[in-house]
Amino acid sequence: MPPGAPGGTTTATAAGASSGATARVDAARALRRSARRISGSLHTFRPLLEPEWSEGIRPELAWLSGTLAVEHAYGARLERLLLALNRLSGAAPVPPQLVGPGGPGGPSADGAARPAAPDRGNLTVGAAKAGALLDRQLTLARTRAHSTALQALGSSRFHAVADKVAVLASEVPLTSAAAATDLRALARAAEERLADAVTALPLVTAGSPYNAEALIHGLSPDPAPHPQDAPWHQVRLLLRLHRYACEVVHGRGTPLDVRLLTAGEALDRHRDASEASSAAAQAARTPRIAPATAYALGVLHADQRHEVEAARYAFQRSWQKQTIGAP
Amino acid sequence: MPPGAPGGTTTATAAGASSGATARVDAARALRRSARRISGSLHTFRPLLEPEWSEGIRPELAWLSGTLAVEHAYGARLERLLLALNRLSGAAPVPPQLVGPGGPGGPSADGAARPAAPDRGNLTVGAAKAGALLDRQLTLARTRAHSTALQALGSSRFHAVADKVAVLASEVPLTSAAAATDLRALARAAEERLADAVTALPLVTAGSPYNAEALIHGLSPDPAPHPQDAPWHQVRLLLRLHRYACEVVHGRGTPLDVRLLTAGEALDRHRDASEASSAAAQAARTPRIAPATAYALGVLHADQRHEVEAARYAFQRSWQKQTIGAP
Repeated sequence: MPPGAPGGTTTATAAGASSGATARVDAARALRRSARRISGSLHTFRPLLEPEWSEGIRPELAWLSGTLAVEHAYGARLERLLLALNRLSGAAPVPPQLVGPGGPGGPSADGAARPAAPDRGNLTVGAAKAGALLDRQLTLARTRAHSTALQALGSSRFHAVADKVAVLASEVPLTSAAAATDLRALARAAEERLADAVTALPLVTAGSPYNAEALIHGLSPDPAPHPQDAPWHQVRLLLRLHRYACEVVHGRGTPLDVRLLTAGEALDRHRDASEASSAAAQAARTPRIAPATAYALGVLHADQRHEVEAARYAFQRSWQKQTIGAP
Repeated sequence: MPPGAPGGTTTATAAGASSGATARVDAARALRRSARRISGSLHTFRPLLEPEWSEGIRPELAWLSGTLAVEHAYGARLERLLLALNRLSGAAPVPPQLVGPGGPGGPSADGAARPAAPDRGNLTVGAAKAGALLDRQLTLARTRAHSTALQALGSSRFHAVADKVAVLASEVPLTSAAAATDLRALARAAEERLADAVTALPLVTAGSPYNAEALIHGLSPDPAPHPQDAPWHQVRLLLRLHRYACEVVHGRGTPLDVRLLTAGEALDRHRDASEASSAAAQAARTPRIAPATAYALGVLHADQRHEVEAARYAFQRSWQKQTIGAP
């Protein structure tokens, strides 16, 4: 019987249960992405839609995608930080793409895919303790986010959004002027908002390697020391809106612009590294930790801030190519 | 009366005393450099010299330049680390070239130049404590090195080297074959040793920015975690020998090859950052420090390892230019 096949309920293997879990993760991801895509398109093309209706549904979609994203984010952050601790300890790196089923964790004896288990044998006491501390804190946060997501999916609020979205498939509440409106003009406006935001970024600095900008407030007494990240996060969101708008205008069958994807990936990495660095700094504020743990968290924080800088450099490079290569 | 002029002993002003101190520092530096230069030239052109004589004097010159270098190195290391702590705290950076007389410390009320006093008002508790700890440890080490250097300069061993070097000015103990030997062939051999050592460096990696190589053993349990630095230090020494050999062959009046200087500066920075990062890691092993101090030292260590990586990148760039630009 293939794992996870219907009818396997009474003799369900661990592999089947695991496939079920994978399916649930995939379903949550698909739901999150759809909510984001619909919300983004409503934003870009809002002059076409009944204002009252679209102003009602957008915060609900944002709530839904936001709630579903948190659990995944904590898991990914923990994985990123544990991989970095291993890399910094000179242990054999575990490439992220190999993590999960078939990866180094591999399907275990009982057939269930295990999460990556980085080799802690080579870690110093400090690195091992830092890893354990992050594991505890982020796993707790992830578990809480999981409960919140489950609650959300069972709530009447969720069912109301789902009903509204289901209706959207057949009858979109358009304004009377919608038929005469040029979709391309609205998509162009989204592209211009992106271009403006990119222009405001410090791209000259970002394009000069090892500029040491990202870590400049690494030891600042300011509890939120990296306002410099915000414009990059904003560009990340505008890039996504631009991509969705392209899909609406050109159709989703159109081949994806690889350079746009590369730029988007750099900004995803920027966001992930920025949040991971904050998690390391946050963990270092845990009372009564050993100095060796705090030292490892300091190295980890700085490492992730350099990832932030590297991601900005990568974005600048791909964006430059894009502008030069543009017709 | 000009500051530091002879005869100013009874009415010596603080400025005069300070000039005297500066003069002593300058004299020590000149002595160190001469010892290094003579030792290097003896090495490159040793087939020209009486083996017994040159094998006798070289370790003595190495001892002298080494002993004199230590005090300066501790001072420079402390300054580098305190500047980095300020930069990492988002405090206004103190450019190193402004440090010293006329710099931000400025000539004080009593006319004496003060060492740079970085503004600690903006530092977190951790950064301030880390700075104070490094200050204590490196100042103590520097003071000890100062005593050792003073002892060395007063020793009969020093006077023996000085006498030998003085003789060198009039009668160099050449071999009988020396007159017929081509200096340029020996200089070329020095250049080839440099070229071979550079070829063995991981220049492809170094030329790819943000490769994260330099920090890879940042949390390794190995107490000497950076053997990767050694080949770069070796190239730094060979580059200096090559430069001295060029001076012998072409004369010191020949304009300096700017690209060679740039490459050498990058390797100096590599060495300084490598040693500063070790000092930060070493300080973090001090018993009973606060976690916040250890965290700041971790960030500082990682920052200096990234300086190491940046210096390798800079070396690769200047070396590439050199090779491409060569006739």
